[in-house]
Parts: sequence; C-alpha cells; structure tokens
Amino acid sequence: MLFFGGDYNPEQWPEEVWEDDVRLMRQAGVTIATVGVFAWSNLEPEEGRYEFGWLDRVLDRLHDGGIQVALATPTASPPPWFTLAHPDAMPVGANGVRLTHGSRDTYCVSAPAYRAAARNIAVKLAERYARHPALAMWHVHNEYGTDCRCDFTAASFRSWLQKRHGDLDTLNEAWTTAFWSQRYSDWAQIMPPRATQYLPNPAHVLDFRRFLSDELLGAYVEQRDLLRAAGPDVPVTTNFVQGGWVSVDHARWAAEVDVVAVDHYPSSADGGAEEETAFAGDLARGWGGGSWLLMETAPNLIYTRGRMHAKEPGRLTRHSLGYVARGSGGAMYFQWRQPRGGAELFHSALVPHAGPDSPVFREAVGLGRTLKALSPHVAEAPPPAAKIAITWDAPSWWALQGGGLPASDIDYLAAVQQAHRALFRAKLPTDFVFPGSATDFSAYRVIVVPHLYLVSDETAVAFRDFVASGGHLVVGYLSGIADPAGRIRLGGYPGAFREVLGVRVVEWHPQPPGVEVLLDGSFSSAIDGRELAGRWSERVETAGAETLARYSAGVLAGAPAVTRNRYGAGTAWYVSTGLTDDGLGRLLSRVADEAGVPPVLPGLPAPVEAVRRGDLLFLFNHGIAAATVTLPAPGVNAVTGRELDGVATVQGGGVVTVRLR
Amino acid sequence: MLFFGGDYNPEQWPEEVWEDDVRLMRQAGVTIATVGVFAWSNLEPEEGRYEFGWLDRVLDRLHDGGIQVALATPTASPPPWFTLAHPDAMPVGANGVRLTHGSRDTYCVSAPAYRAAARNIAVKLAERYARHPALAMWHVHNEYGTDCRCDFTAASFRSWLQKRHGDLDTLNEAWTTAFWSQRYSDWAQIMPPRATQYLPNPAHVLDFRRFLSDELLGAYVEQRDLLRAAGPDVPVTTNFVQGGWVSVDHARWAAEVDVVAVDHYPSSADGGAEEETAFAGDLARGWGGGSWLLMETAPNLIYTRGRMHAKEPGRLTRHSLGYVARGSGGAMYFQWRQPRGGAELFHSALVPHAGPDSPVFREAVGLGRTLKALSPHVAEAPPPAAKIAITWDAPSWWALQGGGLPASDIDYLAAVQQAHRALFRAKLPTDFVFPGSATDFSAYRVIVVPHLYLVSDETAVAFRDFVASGGHLVVGYLSGIADPAGRIRLGGYPGAFREVLGVRVVEWHPQPPGVEVLLDGSFSSAIDGRELAGRWSERVETAGAETLARYSAGVLAGAPAVTRNRYGAGTAWYVSTGLTDDGLGRLLSRVADEAGVPPVLPGLPAPVEAVRRGDLLFLFNHGIAAATVTLPAPGVNAVTGRELDGVATVQGGGVVTVRLR
Amino acid sequence: MLFFGGDYNPEQWPEEVWEDDVRLMRQAGVTIATVGVFAWSNLEPEEGRYEFGWLDRVLDRLHDGGIQVALATPTASPPPWFTLAHPDAMPVGANGVRLTHGSRDTYCVSAPAYRAAARNIAVKLAERYARHPALAMWHVHNEYGTDCRCDFTAASFRSWLQKRHGDLDTLNEAWTTAFWSQRYSDWAQIMPPRATQYLPNPAHVLDFRRFLSDELLGAYVEQRDLLRAAGPDVPVTTNFVQGGWVSVDHARWAAEVDVVAVDHYPSSADGGAEEETAFAGDLARGWGGGSWLLMETAPNLIYTRGRMHAKEPGRLTRHSLGYVARGSGGAMYFQWRQPRGGAELFHSALVPHAGPDSPVFREAVGLGRTLKALSPHVAEAPPPAAKIAITWDAPSWWALQGGGLPASDIDYLAAVQQAHRALFRAKLPTDFVFPGSATDFSAYRVIVVPHLYLVSDETAVAFRDFVASGGHLVVGYLSGIADPAGRIRLGGYPGAFREVLGVRVVEWHPQPPGVEVLLDGSFSSAIDGRELAGRWSERVETAGAETLARYSAGVLAGAPAVTRNRYGAGTAWYVSTGLTDDGLGRLLSRVADEAGVPPVLPGLPAPVEAVRRGDLLFLFNHGIAAATVTLPAPGVNAVTGRELDGVATVQGGGVVTVRLR
Repeated sequence: MLFFGGDYNPEQWPEEVWEDDVRLMRQAGVTIATVGVFAWSNLEPEEGRYEFGWLDRVLDRLHDGGIQVALATPTASPPPWFTLAHPDAMPVGANGVRLTHGSRDTYCVSAPAYRAAARNIAVKLAERYARHPALAMWHVHNEYGTDCRCDFTAASFRSWLQKRHGDLDTLNEAWTTAFWSQRYSDWAQIMPPRATQYLPNPAHVLDFRRFLSDELLGAYVEQRDLLRAAGPDVPVTTNFVQGGWVSVDHARWAAEVDVVAVDHYPSSADGGAEEETAFAGDLARGWGGGSWLLMETAPNLIYTRGRMHAKEPGRLTRHSLGYVARGSGGAMYFQWRQPRGGAELFHSALVPHAGPDSPVFREAVGLGRTLKALSPHVAEAPPPAAKIAITWDAPSWWALQGGGLPASDIDYLAAVQQAHRALFRAKLPTDFVFPGSATDFSAYRVIVVPHLYLVSDETAVAFRDFVASGGHLVVGYLSGIADPAGRIRLGGYPGAFREVLGVRVVEWHPQPPGVEVLLDGSFSSAIDGRELAGRWSERVETAGAETLARYSAGVLAGAPAVTRNRYGAGTAWYVSTGLTDDGLGRLLSRVADEAGVPPVLPGLPAPVEAVRRGDLLFLFNHGIAAATVTLPAPGVNAVTGRELDGVATVQGGGVVTVRLR
Repeated sequence: MLFFGGDYNPEQWPEEVWEDDVRLMRQAGVTIATVGVFAWSNLEPEEGRYEFGWLDRVLDRLHDGGIQVALATPTASPPPWFTLAHPDAMPVGANGVRLTHGSRDTYCVSAPAYRAAARNIAVKLAERYARHPALAMWHVHNEYGTDCRCDFTAASFRSWLQKRHGDLDTLNEAWTTAFWSQRYSDWAQIMPPRATQYLPNPAHVLDFRRFLSDELLGAYVEQRDLLRAAGPDVPVTTNFVQGGWVSVDHARWAAEVDVVAVDHYPSSADGGAEEETAFAGDLARGWGGGSWLLMETAPNLIYTRGRMHAKEPGRLTRHSLGYVARGSGGAMYFQWRQPRGGAELFHSALVPHAGPDSPVFREAVGLGRTLKALSPHVAEAPPPAAKIAITWDAPSWWALQGGGLPASDIDYLAAVQQAHRALFRAKLPTDFVFPGSATDFSAYRVIVVPHLYLVSDETAVAFRDFVASGGHLVVGYLSGIADPAGRIRLGGYPGAFREVLGVRVVEWHPQPPGVEVLLDGSFSSAIDGRELAGRWSERVETAGAETLARYSAGVLAGAPAVTRNRYGAGTAWYVSTGLTDDGLGRLLSRVADEAGVPPVLPGLPAPVEAVRRGDLLFLFNHGIAAATVTLPAPGVNAVTGRELDGVATVQGGGVVTVRLR
Repeated sequence: MLFFGGDYNPEQWPEEVWEDDVRLMRQAGVTIATVGVFAWSNLEPEEGRYEFGWLDRVLDRLHDGGIQVALATPTASPPPWFTLAHPDAMPVGANGVRLTHGSRDTYCVSAPAYRAAARNIAVKLAERYARHPALAMWHVHNEYGTDCRCDFTAASFRSWLQKRHGDLDTLNEAWTTAFWSQRYSDWAQIMPPRATQYLPNPAHVLDFRRFLSDELLGAYVEQRDLLRAAGPDVPVTTNFVQGGWVSVDHARWAAEVDVVAVDHYPSSADGGAEEETAFAGDLARGWGGGSWLLMETAPNLIYTRGRMHAKEPGRLTRHSLGYVARGSGGAMYFQWRQPRGGAELFHSALVPHAGPDSPVFREAVGLGRTLKALSPHVAEAPPPAAKIAITWDAPSWWALQGGGLPASDIDYLAAVQQAHRALFRAKLPTDFVFPGSATDFSAYRVIVVPHLYLVSDETAVAFRDFVASGGHLVVGYLSGIADPAGRIRLGGYPGAFREVLGVRVVEWHPQPPGVEVLLDGSFSSAIDGRELAGRWSERVETAGAETLARYSAGVLAGAPAVTRNRYGAGTAWYVSTGLTDDGLGRLLSRVADEAGVPPVLPGLPAPVEAVRRGDLLFLFNHGIAAATVTLPAPGVNAVTGRELDGVATVQGGGVVTVRLR
C-alpha cells in the first residue's frame, strides 16, 4: 500500500479540531500521519515531567480512523527549559557566538547533556508506544544537519581525527600543515574551524565536515538502537535533507536506516521543478538501493528566490506520482494542516488556512484516490534500474565549497544537476553511483563523472577496470584532481583519470559565466560544426586520446577540448569545458548510442516524461497541450482500468499510468 | 509665530564664533535654536562634575538676540566615562556582542545605571534652566529607537509580557509555541529574540518590538515628568524619527508629548522627495491630531542611495512651506552650522562649510522673511482636515518585516506610500487614521487600507460599522489576515474583512517585481479596458461582491481581481493585486467620486500641488515652467500682500501662498 | 646581478624533491630563493624546542647550487602551540570576536607574549645563519598588516595618542569630540574603534590607522635591529603589500628598510594588468627613492573577481621586465613550486602541479636567460626619473575610506590609478611624490593631485611655492579639504588650494556612476568642443582663475568645471569633476605640453609601452601584431647583442630591450 499523508501536529490545535482532522484524512484517503516531530516541549514541559495523555488520544484516534503513524522522536528541538538547565549544550558558531532557543535545531550534538536528554525522551516514547497498533514507523529526529564549533565538539573532533589519522605526523602530512606554519605538535592544539585571520586550511575544513556527518550519524544510531530494543519489528528511519550547508554524507547514512526517507522541496517555479523532482527521485533511489520514501514535500508551494509560488492545478499530482514512479513507497507532505502561527505559518498544507473548501484539498482528495488505485500495481513493480549512472560524492561537494579554488563560482551540485538534466531531456533513464562508498560499477554501460574532485586510489582503479571491461566513461573537468585528503595528484590534471583518458592537462583557464568559448568539431555531427561552451577551459595535451572537438579561439585555439580514448574494451571521454545543456545532451546521447543504451521510449514528445517501473509506464505531460504517446506494448490505464491499444493520450498537465502487458 | 531655526551646537565651536552665530541668525530671521542635544560630555565631563557655564552664556546670548531655545536633555549619548563606570549598561545585540561608546545612542534603556544617570542630568538641567526666559520648549533625548537584548532587557521584557498576557498559558497560545517545541513552562525561560539556529517565532519578535516601544516610552515619560515638575508651563516633546529599524509606535507616543515633533529626511532626489514631504506632513498631522512641528530636516541635502544630493534652488523653501501647509508650526533644521569634524561632518547646514556667502544661506534668509510674513495668517488658520484617510499601523509594519512571509519583498511602508502618492497625484487631500489606537472613523467618507495585516476584532467591527453607515472602504491585499498576536484568521483571507468585502481568498500568488499581471475590465472606464498590475495576485471567490476587474491570463485567468460590495449604506472595495500608481490613482479617484469627495482644486496643472489650510491656499510648483492656477475665490498673496483676482501664477520651482477671501 | 627566483618552501616536500628543486632552479637560471617565510611551526615545533637541521641542509644545498638565500623570520604565522600558550595574544576584531590559529597572520602585534616569541625566533635564526655564505638578505616577517582591537592594542594606542596629541584637550579638539558627546576626560576612556551603535568618529578611526602603521613598524624595527646586531653587513627588508585593508604607510616605512621590497598582484585580466604593473613599479620606485625590488608576483596567475586567469604566453616575461624597467633589482615570485595542499594550493608557481613539462616553466627558463643577459646593462643604468609626478598619501586614502562622506563610492586608489593610467597612455613618464613625508617638489615640472583630501599647512605652502616658482599643478576634486586630523578647512573647498587655484567651491554635487555630466569648452581644442564627465560635480566660483570648461546642463549649467590660474611664475589647474580617461589624458597632455615635458618617445604605436632606464630603452608590445619603433638613437639589442639602426621591431606580446648609444 503506498503511503499517503504527512506531518500532523495536533498539539498546535484544540482537541475539537482533531475530530475534523481524522474525518478529512479519511475523505482524502490519507494512510499515514507523522506525529510528534517537534513536540518535545509538549511531551516534557519541564525536565522529568511528562505529558503523554494528549499523544495517547491522538494515536488512538488515528488508529480508530484506520490511519497509521510514523512516530517521531522530538529531539530536533529541545524545549526552552533545556537551554536554562544546560547553557553549555547550545551550539556555538565559528565566530564564538553561542545561540539560544527561539527557533528549532538549537543544540550541540556533541554536548553530553543534550545527548542524555535526547536518549531519555526517545526511551520514554519507545517504552510507551513501541507496541501501539497504529505505529508503522519510527522517525528519529528531523533533518539532521546542525553545526557547532564549541569545546565539546572540539573534543569529539579530536577523537574522530585520532581514529582517522592514527598519529599526528600522518595528520600533518594529510593536511599539508607545513603550509602557513600550521604543524600540530599536540592533539589538544586542534580545534574545529573557527574564525581566523584569513583563508582556512581546506583539508581541516573538509575533515570537519566528514566528522560532523559521522557525529550526527552517531546520535541517530544511538536513538535507533534504543527504539529497536523496545520494539524490534518497527522500521526506523530519519528524514534526509539536502543542501549546501548540510554536513551529512547520505550515501554512508543509508546503511543505517531501514528505509531511506527524503525531504524534497523544489526551488524552481518553472519546468526546472520537474527536473529537480526527477533528480531527487533518482538520487534517493540510489541511496536506498532501489526503494525509498518521499517523507516531505510541500503540497502547494514552490519556494523560489524568497517567494512562495502556488503550484498550478495538477502539479501536486504530477510531482507526487513522479516520486512514486522513481521508486518512492508513497507521497508524504509537510504538512497536514497549515498552522495559525509559528515561524512557518505560510508553509503550505493539505488543509490550508482557507480550510478544506480549497483547490489544494480538492486535488489531495483526487490524489488519494489515484494512489490507492496504483498501490497494488506498484507493489508488484520492481523499482526502476538504469544502464547509465552519474556519480555523486558528498565529500567532493564539500571540497568544492571551500576557498582558494580557481574560481569562486564552482558549483558541484549544479554540475551534477546539469548532467542529470541533460539525460532527463534526452529521455535516458539514470541512476546514481557513490564512488566513495562502492566501486562495483558492473551494472552500468555508461558512467558520467561531473566534478568528482576527490578520488581515492581504489576508486581510480575501479573506473579503469570499468572501462577496460567495456564500459563507457564520461569525465568532466575538475574530476580526479585530488586524493581524499584534498592533496593534488601531481604531474598534470585530472590526475586519477589521466591514464584512462589518455590526456594530460597542464593549465586551467576558468572563464566567467557568460563568456562563450567556441569549439570546432562537434561531437554530434561527424566532423564539422561549431559548439558553444563556457565557464571553464583547459590546456589539454593528448596522450593517446583522439580529439573530438577543439577550442577555436583565444589562447587555446587549436587545442583539444573534448577527447575520446579507447582503453581496453571500453571508451573514456574527457570534457574539459562547460558544455551547454544542449551540447551535453547531444554528447551523452551519442555516448549512450555507442554504448547501446536506448531512450526510455522512442519518439516521445518533448514535454512528456516517461518512467518505467516494472510493468508500469508513467507518462507525465509537463506541457499545456494534450500529447499522444505510442506505447511499447498494449496495456491498461492502471488507475481507471481502461484498455489502451498501443496509444495513450495524456492531457496537458496530466499523468497517465499504464500497466503494460 | 512660526518657528524657524534648528539644532545649534555651540559646544563644537570656540566662543568667538557664537557672536557671529547670533548675528547671522538674526539676519536669517531665526526664531528658535535647539540646544544641547548631544552635549552630555560637555555638561558633565566626569560623573558628578558639571560645566554649565558655557550653556548659561549660550542661552543668555540667544535670549539677548531675541531667539528662543528648545533645550534638550542630552541623554541620547552618554559620555565615555559612563561606559567605563557602567559597562553593563552598554547595549547588546542579538548575537551577544556588547557595543561600546564611539558613536551616539550607545546605551541600554533598561539598564538601571543608564536610567539613573539620565534622570540625574535631566533634573540638573531642569533645576537650572526651567525658568530661563529663552526657554520655549523641552526637547527630551533624541530620536528614541535604541535596541538592546541584554539581561536587563530580558527582565523588563518579561514584566511587560506578564502585564500583557497575564499567564503563561495565554502567552503560549498567543505565540503558538506548540510550533517547534517552544512552549514556556517558566517566565524565566523567555528571552529577547537572540541569535538562534533558524527562523524565529514571529509572534515573539512582534511582541518584543511592542515592548521596546513601551520601554522607550517609559524612559521618555520619566524625563518628561521630571521636567514638568520643575517648570510646568513649558511644553515637553521628543523628536520622532521613522524608519524600518525604529521600534516606536508613534500613534501611541503622541498622547504623551505636548507637541508632536518630527524629523524628516526625504530619500529621493527626484519628485519623490516632494511626495515624501507631503506624506510625512500628513502622517505627522495625524499623530498630532491636527498640529505638529517639523523638528529636523536637512537644509541642503537629500541623502539618497549613499550619495548626498544638494537641493536645487528653491527646493528648501518649497519643502519647508510644504510642511507648514500640512500643519507644522514651523520649519526647523538639522543644523545651524556645518561641523568641522565628527561623524556627520558633511551633513548640510544653514551655514555651510563655505560660510554665509553661499546659496543655502542666501535661500535661508529669504525663507526666514517668508515665514515671518506668513506667521499671522497661519496663526488664524486651522490645520487641514480631509475626507479621505489612509490607515497607518506600526505593529502591522513590524509584523510584515518578519520572516516566513509569502514573499521576502513585502513592504508595508511602500504600500502605504503608494496609496498616499496615488491620492497626492489625484489632488485628493488625505489624512491618516490609526486603527490600533482609535476606531472612530466617522469624520471620513473614504478609508484606504493598505497592508493592514493585524486587525483586532474591535477594529474589524469598526470598519464594518463605517461601511454600514455609508462609508467607502478600499481594502488592499495583505489586510485583515491576522489577529493582533499575528495568528491567522482562518477560513479564507482577508479574514477580518471577508464579510464586509463579500469575498473569500483561497490561495495567494505572489509575483516577482517586474512580472506583469494583466487585468480585464478597468475600474476607470465603464466596462472594457485593460489594466496592468504586478507583485501579487490571489485566487478570489466572490460571496456577494461584484467583480470590477478580472485576471486575464495565467492560472487565475477569469478570476476576480478587483471587487465592490454594497454593505449596508456603504461600499467596500477589494484590491487583490498590486496596481500601478496610475491604476490605483484612477481607482481611488473613482471611489472619491462615488463618495462625493472632490479634489482640492479643479483643473490644477499636473506639477502644481495645492494645500488648503483654513483660508490659506498654498500653491507649490514642482515643475520647471511657470503655471497658472484658477483660484476658487479672490484673495491676496499672503507674503507680498498683492491682490489676486481669481488667478495666481506660480513660477517654476516656486510657491505662492494665497489668503482667500 | 638581477635577482631571479622567489619563495621556496622545501618544508612542504620530502627531501627527495629538494635535489630536483636545485637542479630545476639551475636550469631556469634562478639566483635567489626566499626561504622560511611561514616555517615557524617547523623550526620551533614546540615552545623552546628547535629543529634547524632541515634548514641547515636546505641552505647548504642551495649554496652548493650557486643560489643565494633571502632568509625570512617566520613571525607572520605563530604555530598552533602559541595559541594555546597565549590565548590573549590572539587578535580581537571590532566586534569582540577573538580569532584563533587555522590560517596565517593570527596574532596581536601589541601582545607582549607575541612580541617576545617573535624576538626569540628572530634571534635564534640570526645567531645560526647570519654568517651563512648563502645569505644575501634578511626578509623580516611577511606583508605586515594585521589589525587588532584588544586591550593590549588599546593600551598601545593610548600611549601613541599621548605622544601625538600631548594632552586630552588637544585630542578632544583634533577629534571634534564635542560632536555626539564624545569628549574624553581620562585617557583610559579611549579605546580602539570597536562595535558601536552608529557611525564612528572618523578622526578616531583615522588616528587608529596611523597608530597601527606605527605599531607594526615598531615590530619590524625591533626584529631588524636584532638581525643587524648579529650580522651587520646583510641588508634587511620586509615585503610591502598594498590594499585598502592594509594600515601601513609605506612612504614612512621606506626609511626603515635597506631596500624597498614590494609584492604585487595585478587584478585585471585585460590590458589593465599592464597598467597596474606600471603603476606599482612607479609607486615602489618612489618609495625606494629610485631603486626597489619586486619580491613577489604570481608567475602564471591574475586573480580577478574571484577567478584565476592564466597568463597568456609572453605575459610573464613582459610583466617581469616591466618591473625591472621601472627600477626593480630583479623579478621574484610567489612561488617556486605549487603546493599539494594548504589554503593556496592553486596559487601559481614556476613549477606547477603539472611539473616542469609545462608552459610556465618553459617560459621561466627563457626569462632566466634574458635577465642574465640584461644584468650587466641594468647594473650601469640609473633608475628612471620623470618630470611629472602624482601625489600619493596613505592617510588621505584612509580618510576617504570612512563613512559620512558625500558619496559612498569615493575611491582614492581609483582616482590615483586613473591619473597614472592617463599619463601612461599618453606615454608620459611618471614619478610619485609623498606630500606627507616630503615637500621638496623642485625636481618636477608638473604635479598631479588626485583626492589629496588631507593637507597640512606646510604642504599647502609647499604646493604654493612650487607653482609660484614656475611649476604646473593639476588639482582634482576632494583635494585639500581637511587638515591632517580630518577637520574641514572652512570658507569654501578646496581649502588648502583655494588661493593657488583662484577658485572657491560652495557646494558639492556628487553624481552616481553612469550619470553623464556634459561640459562645454574642451581643454584639448582651443575653444569649442564638448566633453563628457561624471561621478562628481561642484558649484565652483572663480576668484582670479580663468574657466576652461563649463558645466553645460543641470543646475550647474554655465558654472566653471575646469579652471586655470596663473600664480607667480606657474599655473594651477582645477578639475572639479570626474573626467573620462580620455579627457584626463588630453588635459594632462596639454599641461605637459605647456610645461615643456615631452612623451618618452615621439610617435610610439598605441600598444607599445616604452621605458627609459639610463641608456636602456625597454619596448613592450602589449598588442597582438608586431610593431615598429623608431629609436631616438642607434643601439643594440641588449639581450641578443644585435645591432639596431634606428628602428626596432617588437613582436606581438614581446619585449625588446635596446641599449642606446
């Protein structure tokens, strides 16, 4: 059964509203409610005094209404009494400013008092509700990601470093502390990155982000194990959030959750939102090893550039089914009922301020019906699996967020998103692989490697083996530059990939955005043609590779820009510049073609997105006009049961899900 | 007698300059000098040691020259010795940084030591000068507005909250502390808004601004009462300053001053400065209940976008008379003599660095003559009173400065200024009303309500009664959304006005600036026509109202945009989008016409502004070419005494004041 | 022998790399290596424990290779142990945040513990290496410029102020502390500028920057004297860095170094880099009184707007010889070998990440040969000396960086650079003079005075004498406004220059960038013509001067814009607006012509820069096409020895150095 529901905060409302809630949930076909996420101050209003009665009544009432519960531990937001009792458990920024309660997420994850209080409330909840019949899932905390630089953090950081590096000589070498007189002669000298005079040591900053990810993971595992101990059959998870400020390596965390749960809020109001949705779904599926769960998205809101964009009619449904098509076990929202007050009082909800007599609630009712109809079909469908994969690597992202880089606008996420977008538009299904966590690439025919800045020796070997065995590798600039500590691989860029690519880069020429670099010799047509690129260029020397496109102006005129190297049974492409979306799309289509990987469906109209999940074919029409799609086989509309003889018509803004025969 | 003068700081100059000052003041016709505003360190150079001799000589010398004195208490800037003696009385920011002396306004208004020192110097001045013959007015402090988040402030804040909310349950409910686990179980847990991890609670922030306004008011009242006790016949005031950062609710403060004194510095170099001047004058008159005093403006400077714009010839006169026409009891300036040093050494003055042989001083001499000539006429003229009013509400402004709103560029001040500008350009005289402080709207035919976000139940009733009794109400979007605590009024926007407007809004569609929203069905012509709008749109459902204009494109195509509802004997209009200045002007002209409110004068040339103050008609020509105005009755030029037979000619950039018969 | 080499950090590399280093240095013709700049934590890994062995081996190995050493004291970056031992020696910002190690330059120069540790390591190095045969120069510290606002700094600041002002009354008067109640009654009340409520006192800020310059100079002198005591024959210097944040008055420091050593990093990727190079060379020569040394520049990098621009082929050579032509005793680089890690791991080097098989190393090898060939010729050539000079004054720069100015985008550096650029493009050789340090202008025919905001009475007299004796003075707006304390010179701007210019400015009209001011009456043609200007305008009244150009629109229409005044035997020009580069170039060419100062060579092609250094004529072709230059006399190519009969051809991007006969 697909999950349908979302965050439910009855503690914000008088009890007379609760009855209305359950009635409306049933009307909408809601199957699950996430309860208690920020309820700590209502569950434990004073240290050691608990008020569980209201939560008992909420869970019973939901259960009576046939609605399951994802019960959260409320540890993401300690109550005000906690601050007064434990001021040293409040987080401290790099500049030494200690924060205080007044928002959410205000705690230091390394502070013993915080950890003890979090364990205590988790155990209390586990003891009381582990066997409650409504309980379907434990939801630990919320969107882990809090940063702190206090002395507790410093002590934990040092322990972590001792485990990672063993001794100070190794650390000094890994961090190149000979630069700017930073050599450490005692562990006690090492601090979290704090306000300093000028540029910090990037290796120091990088290891601190790794540490934070592990430190937060430790806090999660601690709660998970307590919950498991109280009721071992209930799956435990925490909701992942992604952002440039979040020091969480989700590929590593995925191993510790029973189901990968993801919060996703697109940030583009236009068609970019559809591409972000596809990206998030494919990435989450990668973390989850095939399956995952959309834990939060906004029902009626795309928050873009400081402005709330209300979703157009049909978009809630289209996005929601988009996640399901890409492997999600349901569609859940933040939030059920729009609050009257609080910091997010205009964040959208299934029941908005205007009440159920509103467009969003009406669309939710329809969506509930659709998900119910799809549930049996989806249950039989394995998640999608592609022959093309893009690499994703959180530490490379972190490293490329540092200072001292050749350009201040290097953007790891944008580079990966562009690769995904190019494949999405080319209708080529895409997976993600995580070279820091796994090196078995044998499931794929093509791997695209954007901005994979940090590469270990083992990973370098794995990529070489992949190509040698017949794989097709597309490496973008800024890949393979450094070892995992961030030390440059000497002798020419892109160090880790030089051999397999058959090139050597002796000089970088980053370009400002908007500056056009012209290439001769397109990769899409055979020989001639012109291709625009930008943002980056390089002096590439070939060492075995053939040149597919050359720079045609400026100091690099005539030098190779895009190359292809036969290596063993496979092929390795190097892209030394920033192609346009179109150019990258043509290049990757050609690579897929050479690798024998076809698009999801031939002849799909441009605005139609198609996703295969087992026998199911999801057809999303992101355009305004109706579109006709030729089916690969006869089937039935999985929602309506109507027979489809080889052709499906999808209304503008609509979705048709076909069960193929 | 109209006041003419301004801030005078003899303590910055050797005594030989003082004689020159009095001579030049007499030459310019100066009638009053504000003395002592920042003189604390010169009056009390060490704690408990006083130097009043120089001030004695200054006051005597001014009195001998026939010039009155507004004597200030210098409490806006404690001397350096105060910092060292009372470091805990220095203000602390939200991030915990404690400021120190080195500028002005550096003190915590809740710190006992500061309050004691301020009372002490105020009493010393009162004892010495309360009966000085030059004394015309007490000027307490300067531009109250300092913010602090220290522990003294926290304690005062808690006391204020206890008075406002009574008990913690009420506060928790008002602040929706169930959101994000912020429920307070002890008053001691409440702090001023300080640095925290993420978005603050908007109700917390809003109450803190209300508290600050009251806390500062308490400090003013304390001094006022001491001064009154020493010499009860002298009026006491403090100069109001307005700005997004100022936590002062002037509508509440107005009750505590003997005359509303206002500082006003336009920030547009173009014609916007004239509109700002009219706005400031009308708003100040509203606070003052008819009369007020321009306490500061810059003689020769419009500071706009980080650049000092020297006023064009005639503009000093035009602006100055503009304030007088709108009810000011004079025109006063910051400052008399441009300083040689200090933080504002380029701030303009009546006597600039170049000396009296300068354009600004020459214009000042002429202005002094004009004001003297107008004085007897103005003395007989009641202040202007309009039939149209705009609402002004400081707490709504504060609430709309918070985070978490549907758009980050919501601008309360801009919305109110636009309404005023539209009426100004339509030549419709305008008052302001203060719905938080008063609910008797019976003096008006039309009330315009821009962005009145917070509305109490009493105010909502008052607006309904106003319309039911025949009034014309024009409500703009973002009005009536929340109760005074900032909690949303549920069931559909704009909650407090739904009934009187006969509409229900189910969804907001904020638009970026620059995006054009097209409307069908203009409100200016009968049926057809097209109207551009922007920044905002909404899904409006009518419930009794008629639709005057509809959205004509996008997802809202065909839905109502501007509506009109007959309610009792009156009419209520709703404007759900951001009209252009022109569009709003046409709409408001039509409303005024329906309400039977005529423009100030028929057929006025566009660049001419006309203001009636009793029998006086001020005509300002903001254009370059001369303009001819047909008078409503014969009269005389109130300055020259020349007869005017029904027509007045106003030179480009000039002013003519007509005493009508 | 011209120096060729740069920063060498063997401590970042294993010893097996060192051998390769010396071999490659010899291959490139390197003559000098700067060693030890940031090696403190490698020399003294724990307090009082020293490791000199590695440095012994490095110096011996370099000496064996025939390479000299500039040995640095490493005091710019104390090791991590220092922070833990002396937390109160870490610098504190204006907001009270204390920094910690983790970068470089993190110390308070006024902290006794820092000064003691710095003296100690300097003495240890002096004792060990003062007589080492490789030692050619002592290089103290690195780029002095660290700012601190702690209590140690406060104490030093007070002592400095007591010396400067003598008593508090004088200070109160100089700082105009009567403004905003800032009068000090005890020295203990004075603090460094710290976070305060609103605008600071500009005189306070200005004196603090003067203090910082002197305080840092004291730290330098302390080390210099210790090094001299250990080995009096070795020259001692420190490398100057220039930037808006650097509180160092290099004109004063120049007297304390044995050779003026300058770090210079151009920031424009286009032809602006050549103009910056010429500017830096001329300014450094001024500081050095004729000779100086380029201590650092980037071999292959122009860092511009957050982006690393790789130098085009030939540009390294062209820039390097540009410094030499303008008086440098060599060309040195940061750095020899590009590091694998650390904060500046992408900063360019003579040996880049790609290794010696790279364009930059190949160009370095050629450059080494060229410098060797030029050395004997340069040794016989006196440095260039011009007849035109521009004023440079660090305190005026600092004063114009403050707040409260008539425009927030006033830019002292840009104004001086524009004057230099105009002369550079007009092929007019230029020196710099330092009116705060010297007032003998007799070597010059023309002096250009941009934004010389602070002028003492002595300097004002010196300029008048210069003109009276026949000199040509060109004064730009914002000059002569204030005395050295920043107090305005009253009676009309530009106070200090009013008499010599024969003008009086009564009002400023700053204009936004991009706003065009049109002038009538060009200074280049005789009478008519139109000239565009911008950013600034003024109401100028002439008092004896003739008007060369007038404002032709706006409120200033018809008023003087550019004037010329005969004064004694000379002429003084006033430019009251911001001319374009072209306009300023034409004006200065006309002044030079009237003053009888010819360009460096007649008829030079536009892209060719020519510099005379004694008998040497350096010809730089910054264009792409080859250019032919008519020589003033026959000569030989100083590098190749080829005879040149009156004509030299310079390849695009190339340099030809001619030894004239």
